[in-house]
Amino acid sequence: MMSELETNDPLVIAGQTFKSRLLVGTGKYKDMAETGAAIEASGAEIVTMAVRRTNLGQNPDEPNLLDVVSPDRYTLLPNTAGCYTADDAVRTCRLARELLDGHDLVKLEVLGDQKTLYPNIIETVKAAETLVKDGFKVMVYTNDDPIVAKQLEEIGCVAVMPLGSLIGSGLGIQNPHNIRLIMEEANVPILVDAGIGTPSEAAMAMEMGCAGVLVNSAIAGAQNPVLMAKAMQKAVQAGREAHLAVRMPRKAYASASSPLDGLISK
Amino acid sequence: MMSELETNDPLVIAGQTFKSRLLVGTGKYKDMAETGAAIEASGAEIVTMAVRRTNLGQNPDEPNLLDVVSPDRYTLLPNTAGCYTADDAVRTCRLARELLDGHDLVKLEVLGDQKTLYPNIIETVKAAETLVKDGFKVMVYTNDDPIVAKQLEEIGCVAVMPLGSLIGSGLGIQNPHNIRLIMEEANVPILVDAGIGTPSEAAMAMEMGCAGVLVNSAIAGAQNPVLMAKAMQKAVQAGREAHLAVRMPRKAYASASSPLDGLISK
Amino acid sequence: MMSELETNDPLVIAGQTFKSRLLVGTGKYKDMAETGAAIEASGAEIVTMAVRRTNLGQNPDEPNLLDVVSPDRYTLLPNTAGCYTADDAVRTCRLARELLDGHDLVKLEVLGDQKTLYPNIIETVKAAETLVKDGFKVMVYTNDDPIVAKQLEEIGCVAVMPLGSLIGSGLGIQNPHNIRLIMEEANVPILVDAGIGTPSEAAMAMEMGCAGVLVNSAIAGAQNPVLMAKAMQKAVQAGREAHLAVRMPRKAYASASSPLDGLISK
Amino acid sequence: MMSELETNDPLVIAGQTFKSRLLVGTGKYKDMAETGAAIEASGAEIVTMAVRRTNLGQNPDEPNLLDVVSPDRYTLLPNTAGCYTADDAVRTCRLARELLDGHDLVKLEVLGDQKTLYPNIIETVKAAETLVKDGFKVMVYTNDDPIVAKQLEEIGCVAVMPLGSLIGSGLGIQNPHNIRLIMEEANVPILVDAGIGTPSEAAMAMEMGCAGVLVNSAIAGAQNPVLMAKAMQKAVQAGREAHLAVRMPRKAYASASSPLDGLISK
Repeated sequence: MMSELETNDPLVIAGQTFKSRLLVGTGKYKDMAETGAAIEASGAEIVTMAVRRTNLGQNPDEPNLLDVVSPDRYTLLPNTAGCYTADDAVRTCRLARELLDGHDLVKLEVLGDQKTLYPNIIETVKAAETLVKDGFKVMVYTNDDPIVAKQLEEIGCVAVMPLGSLIGSGLGIQNPHNIRLIMEEANVPILVDAGIGTPSEAAMAMEMGCAGVLVNSAIAGAQNPVLMAKAMQKAVQAGREAHLAVRMPRKAYASASSPLDGLISK
Repeated sequence: MMSELETNDPLVIAGQTFKSRLLVGTGKYKDMAETGAAIEASGAEIVTMAVRRTNLGQNPDEPNLLDVVSPDRYTLLPNTAGCYTADDAVRTCRLARELLDGHDLVKLEVLGDQKTLYPNIIETVKAAETLVKDGFKVMVYTNDDPIVAKQLEEIGCVAVMPLGSLIGSGLGIQNPHNIRLIMEEANVPILVDAGIGTPSEAAMAMEMGCAGVLVNSAIAGAQNPVLMAKAMQKAVQAGREAHLAVRMPRKAYASASSPLDGLISK
Repeated sequence: MMSELETNDPLVIAGQTFKSRLLVGTGKYKDMAETGAAIEASGAEIVTMAVRRTNLGQNPDEPNLLDVVSPDRYTLLPNTAGCYTADDAVRTCRLARELLDGHDLVKLEVLGDQKTLYPNIIETVKAAETLVKDGFKVMVYTNDDPIVAKQLEEIGCVAVMPLGSLIGSGLGIQNPHNIRLIMEEANVPILVDAGIGTPSEAAMAMEMGCAGVLVNSAIAGAQNPVLMAKAMQKAVQAGREAHLAVRMPRKAYASASSPLDGLISK
Repeated sequence: MMSELETNDPLVIAGQTFKSRLLVGTGKYKDMAETGAAIEASGAEIVTMAVRRTNLGQNPDEPNLLDVVSPDRYTLLPNTAGCYTADDAVRTCRLARELLDGHDLVKLEVLGDQKTLYPNIIETVKAAETLVKDGFKVMVYTNDDPIVAKQLEEIGCVAVMPLGSLIGSGLGIQNPHNIRLIMEEANVPILVDAGIGTPSEAAMAMEMGCAGVLVNSAIAGAQNPVLMAKAMQKAVQAGREAHLAVRMPRKAYASASSPLDGLISK
């Protein structure tokens, strides 16, 4: 059952509203069946896929991802994983738009090298400029630099997605301080993308005030991906609710859970 | 709706089974109504109360906690908060047993000082020995010392509850390494008691393999305790599920979410 | 007395060798006398100063920094603090070269905003390209992005200086993982610039393998800047020696300082 | 050359003054020669040895530690490593006193198990009581529990030595918060014993206000123990000086190293 909060606290990206703040990927699963089952269990509404590595109909004789991730049910978020230049990324987005009948919501990632999969910021900025001019709604993967994040917003990206740590590393949010600086200045949704390894890390991102998180390896790489997907869903909800509920203040010293005065005399 | 997991993965304390792994306290709320509402929202089945500060019927003319925390619905866990000696704690447990018609499940805490509310281990061990001999089922609040935890188990305590950080501090688990050492040697449930400030911290404790967590200040001290209680419930479930699903391995370097080879030719 | 190590393990920047791996700034001191005393106590050989805020002879009637930081004794490192565009930074470096008779070693910083003093990477890259072409030896302040660091090296910068945390924050190295990634790929000296608040943080940077650290606020902002400068000198040496000595491996469990077998029989 | 600070800021234990705040052990070295060289390089004045594992003259035909660690030059600190009961520890201290002609300064450690070498607090307290009554000056290894630390002081121990992390683990100070709580209440020197893996960790302990640190594995286990010993000496001095110099305040946002106003007009 959907609680009132979930109904009244939507994630809004480029004018579209979503109940779930957990975005998921489609990579690294054993097979299509596991991909579909895990995505369903996650409760995600936005699902991202690497256009250059995924059959979205290009190869008619092979299994098509859209059979398990139906565009009728999910908001597709084609991404440019595997692209190392702005040109490549722009070309890939245009291919996706073609394959998906004019679909214009994309996730831009222009990578710096294969060892770290860290974004190449110079090329990312270039690609973002071109894509925005070309009418795309660009959600953009970036480093955790607050100045770059603001520049990407000013270019017109509809969401900014700083990394918590390296893609696929499961090292969590290495520099929460920077994520906070990004959020303080942002007027578009900030979603942590990359690095989340556990539900507690996803919850932490949400508690800090992130609009959402994107998780792939942590689900696909768990021993039980479907169960981990459920856990991630709950953790993201928990983190969001905690953010709205406003945490207790941290204290250097203890304080009794009940007031110290007024002990009942025996 | 209860998922299969929740049905099949009970918390067992002293032979009694529980579906929820979140234990909650009753201190620091605005009033009885808020206490009741937050506890209900938390989904907790075990509720702890400071015998020396709570009216469990001692004062017939004042509001009685049992009106909002009914023994028919919840497993009561009277605790010895406010006791600074073994004698005091033992006396308090006996009072609770009397007030609650022979109820023998108690939470022992013998404190060291008012500034830190850190346990006094010497007195805690003494009290545990006496209470166990006296037929109590003792869940015991302790520091995060793995040797002490094992000693308390050997004395016969039914659960060991190391602190994450100071009571009421909301500083989370300061030394996860010690909690892990405690769990590696334990044959009774280990529950993190004290210090949890946010759902992500509760989830982290569960991901590490703790049997449960006890939370009070983090719920009662939130701006919206009922919403925070819901968040804690989800986080504890998420953390438990993640523990069972087994997290992805951490990696020093990135790895693409999809294999690097096999790019679809365009 | 200089130990053998210090003699044989020089820091080399743009072909010039230095014994000290601690670089210091000249900002935030009470007066010129304190500036001079602290810099002397630090043992630093390279001293940086903001060209736009420092009198290097532009104003003949005012106190001149060069009276306490003599070019005969120290290697001057004019920096572009206060510049927010590539053009501004380039112009400032040229002014410095003029004021300092052709001096071509500069520290480039192009800032993103006044709140964070985070670098503007796009403008930094532009300015670096221009300055390198113009014959400057550029040491460059940057974020901790490993791809950007490599790009700045490839442009021809003689040293890359990632931030540990915000300038003047004293928050230490927020993301050591990134600093390590930068060092793994680097062929020029990597120096941590900005954020160091204490000697232990400076030592940690050196232990990780950084070629040096630049410290200003942590010295000037201490209650006793001269004593703190001495402490920083020792910490940087300690960290460097520890790096060369190669630390013991970390272990999850204890091991006795002496072998467990072979107890002497009594 | 000894600086003024070092002359005027002695470590005082049981009325005896020391210039060095770095205490070292004698275990785990390759041979006696390395032991002697590393200890000399460390500048330590107090040197601890496990009475039950070290030949202090018990075995006249074997190498005697006192040949490289002369009682004329160093203050010997016999310790009870390898003892798992109070009785054993007391007996071992008495043996040491006999072997060392009435020497009464000892380091008490009563261990809990071989896996963690964590202290057994119950037995430690018992042994401390006996030893103090018996005229020993007891420096005592303990966990980082602030209540236990205070109890050991009240028993009459001349110094309290909480662990940073497990003996021989090199994991640094896992819970600095507890070390601070211990120091806030202490009237005897607090020295971090166990866990220090690097000079930066030793410096951190000193910056926090610890009176000293005891290091063994981090020196003996380095690839170059003599160089690491030098590094530790400098780091401990740096940390102490930084403590006395009082660090700059931490700030959430940047502040320019030079005031923002008053840019020199060009």
